[in-house]
Amino acid sequence: MLNRVRSAVAHLVSSSGTSSQRSKSPDLPKAISPPPGALETPKSPGTKSGNEIPAPQKTAETPVSFSRPTFLQLSPGGLRRADDHVGRAVQSPPDTGRRLPWSTGYAEVINAGKSRHNEDQACCEVVYVESRRSITGVSREPSHNQGFSFYYWGLFDGHAGGGAAEMASRLLHRHIREQLKDLVEILQDPLPPPLCLPSTPGTPGVSSPSQLVSPQSWSPQKEVTHDSLVVGAIENAFQLMDEQMARERRGHLVEGGCCALVVVYLLGKMYVANAGDSRAIIVRNGEIIPMSREFTPETERQRLQLLGFLKPELLGSEFTHLEFPRRVQPKELGQRMLYRDQNMTGWSGRIELEDLRFPLVCGEGKKARVMATIGVTRGLGDHNLKVCSSTLPIKPFLSCFPEVRVYDLTQYEHCPDDVLVLGTDGLWDVTNDSEVAATVDRVLSTYEPNDPSRYTALAQALVLGARGIPRDRGWRLPNNKLGSGDDISVFVIPLGGPGSSYS
Amino acid sequence: MLNRVRSAVAHLVSSSGTSSQRSKSPDLPKAISPPPGALETPKSPGTKSGNEIPAPQKTAETPVSFSRPTFLQLSPGGLRRADDHVGRAVQSPPDTGRRLPWSTGYAEVINAGKSRHNEDQACCEVVYVESRRSITGVSREPSHNQGFSFYYWGLFDGHAGGGAAEMASRLLHRHIREQLKDLVEILQDPLPPPLCLPSTPGTPGVSSPSQLVSPQSWSPQKEVTHDSLVVGAIENAFQLMDEQMARERRGHLVEGGCCALVVVYLLGKMYVANAGDSRAIIVRNGEIIPMSREFTPETERQRLQLLGFLKPELLGSEFTHLEFPRRVQPKELGQRMLYRDQNMTGWSGRIELEDLRFPLVCGEGKKARVMATIGVTRGLGDHNLKVCSSTLPIKPFLSCFPEVRVYDLTQYEHCPDDVLVLGTDGLWDVTNDSEVAATVDRVLSTYEPNDPSRYTALAQALVLGARGIPRDRGWRLPNNKLGSGDDISVFVIPLGGPGSSYS
Repeated sequence: MLNRVRSAVAHLVSSSGTSSQRSKSPDLPKAISPPPGALETPKSPGTKSGNEIPAPQKTAETPVSFSRPTFLQLSPGGLRRADDHVGRAVQSPPDTGRRLPWSTGYAEVINAGKSRHNEDQACCEVVYVESRRSITGVSREPSHNQGFSFYYWGLFDGHAGGGAAEMASRLLHRHIREQLKDLVEILQDPLPPPLCLPSTPGTPGVSSPSQLVSPQSWSPQKEVTHDSLVVGAIENAFQLMDEQMARERRGHLVEGGCCALVVVYLLGKMYVANAGDSRAIIVRNGEIIPMSREFTPETERQRLQLLGFLKPELLGSEFTHLEFPRRVQPKELGQRMLYRDQNMTGWSGRIELEDLRFPLVCGEGKKARVMATIGVTRGLGDHNLKVCSSTLPIKPFLSCFPEVRVYDLTQYEHCPDDVLVLGTDGLWDVTNDSEVAATVDRVLSTYEPNDPSRYTALAQALVLGARGIPRDRGWRLPNNKLGSGDDISVFVIPLGGPGSSYS
Repeated sequence: MLNRVRSAVAHLVSSSGTSSQRSKSPDLPKAISPPPGALETPKSPGTKSGNEIPAPQKTAETPVSFSRPTFLQLSPGGLRRADDHVGRAVQSPPDTGRRLPWSTGYAEVINAGKSRHNEDQACCEVVYVESRRSITGVSREPSHNQGFSFYYWGLFDGHAGGGAAEMASRLLHRHIREQLKDLVEILQDPLPPPLCLPSTPGTPGVSSPSQLVSPQSWSPQKEVTHDSLVVGAIENAFQLMDEQMARERRGHLVEGGCCALVVVYLLGKMYVANAGDSRAIIVRNGEIIPMSREFTPETERQRLQLLGFLKPELLGSEFTHLEFPRRVQPKELGQRMLYRDQNMTGWSGRIELEDLRFPLVCGEGKKARVMATIGVTRGLGDHNLKVCSSTLPIKPFLSCFPEVRVYDLTQYEHCPDDVLVLGTDGLWDVTNDSEVAATVDRVLSTYEPNDPSRYTALAQALVLGARGIPRDRGWRLPNNKLGSGDDISVFVIPLGGPGSSYS
């Protein structure tokens, strides 16, 4: 995530030529360690799940180690090549080994030097969910109701360290599985879902079927769809993952934060959940269907400003919730510079400038920042992130909640060239939906429809097309513009369904 | 606005058969007068405009009088017919008199008895804006820069009394004019707007041209378009109108609140500003272009819940920011009923029910309510609105800010059948965009393109089609469904430009 976390405000308000100081800083800040004893376990009032998901042993043993997704099956030599900023070799799962589930294509490349390691991580799994009722021994129903599998893909774009992305890639699907355990019977039952779930999940003896309270027709009630229960489960899983990161940041197990873009395939539907600035699109018969939107200081400006307005203590004495079209100069005090507040989309000059506090949200496009520090407003982790030279925490302004979009695979007859493309911002910084759709068409048309390597070839083409080739002291695209110097990771998921090559 | 403000929570939590008590109540509550001395002028920190717009003399003399738009030119007998709930005669400007600006068509009808008078109001004006600089005598520039005119249409759908709608119909365009005075030269100058305006508007001597600070290229800055300045001016005008209502509610000058749907035509563009549940659509060559969206407890659920979560004191001891799919029963305490919080779009049963507080947002569709009271979440007024049997104010959850959409009239060659239709919810409750587009086609095709009465005929057809005819002890549509018993008001604005009939 190049340029998206900055070591922040050397001078909050520029007076003369100091404005370039911030943007030139090439180093990303390490998350600041909290003083001993200052750590709190974040409260989640009323949460009584108690189904703790332990961090994998490996993480505890080698807290800040470098790793790539296990499905790449990298040898020690391969790992070194994947970690080489100079060669920037594109990595994919080997042709010879176990293929990814669902004939998924994948490719990645490390950044051009902006961070020591590739801070993107990826996960692709088939996850079996056992009903909580069958686990607790209450249910003795036919076996097909006792569990189901979901397919899972996750892209995690880390910043300020790779720890959060690595942790999320290992654990987020387990949180999703945990949340789905309550829903195994409900999702397989065509009747409308019950509005009450058994109390105290996981406690034997209380989750009898009679406690699945049925809808009562005498009372008006909202429609609760099966889809909305899965969406709720994914939303909760993101929050629980974020809370686990908060607990385990002690001892540097978790560094920095990460964007998370996740797809869950369950019972005929794709649930695409995005928190951050990665992007998912479907290319179907040449048509582009956006499956996510990016969460940045610009797209979330009004949410951030509202929070700053309602909780001014979060702004300290350094920031104002107002936005200005450029930096305010001391000589402009007393004038009416144009501004926007949390309610406005237009600009107004209705109030006079009274002080030089820095705007909570500033900058445009890839340079937009919250508190002059971070350029993405949703994701996991970042519990230690502070404004530089300050103890002001940034986390309160970041949301761990994804937006989830649902795509019903059964509503359309998909052909082998219809795909869901997931990419981190390393891809999208230098290309757009239309160019990706053109590459989909160009690459897939050169492969037989049943060639199992075609989706990985497409992922590689997309990564290569965004990276470019080394020329004129930089990585350049065919049009001579700069290629992406960021980590780039791409999944290509064929919508035609799980391929025969899954083993 | 039938059914949109309810006299609220007789029993916040139902225990047995009391659930129908609320929805059967036919009477709308009067706004509760605050105790003497409890009134405050709302603070607008930093606002120094000082350009107070006085309420019209008439309002001060006859605070709760009944009136209809002056452009209807109603005689005393006509006013009585317009006020007749039984006959429900459709009202339009007379064919013989002065036509509305821009060949605008208009029709309205009173409700079927839900409130004493028609609580909708309307305004259609051409408004001249004189530059503040020419007013203060600073500017000596050529006369074409010293002012411009804008066309203005406003629909105001009152609730809990007609005072707010009447006040807004008389004054909101004057607030817009006041805000535009600063922009007269800027909007007529093709150069990018300056980022600073003269300090202290209206004060002679300080607003010299040299203080219109130009963009400085060395500092990165946001693009400020001319459009976004007009949008900001309209947003500010809505806020100032709302603040004026707060000041002048003392002595019952302003009753209740109102939705506001406003169109400003300025320099080739239509600015459509909506706060409430009225709706604007363009029908162009048969195609429908939505020009507004509705603001209701359902569409604004997450904004409302976030406010309740961040400021729990606004919920009192009666409400919870969580939403449940139906009313919670006492026997369900300790269970895990499905819920959604401010971050979620899906449903989850992650937490156990601990108390029986009533959800901040409840109900569906036209029955959705904030604090069991009001069914619309944006608009003007409502400063005295309280939860029934409580002193808990509802106004903090209501926003006076409109969403503004811009339509550039110069980008398309419009034919005489292309129109912008504005309607209060009395229209949209019983019809939809497609049916309105079909009526547009059907009615306009029966009139010559240059017939000046065609747009009023269309407005009448739309109002009649939503009202229906009296049959089977009710107002019924041709399909025998119930027609709208609400006040219905419709503007039809031809996009072909101002007609020759404007005088």
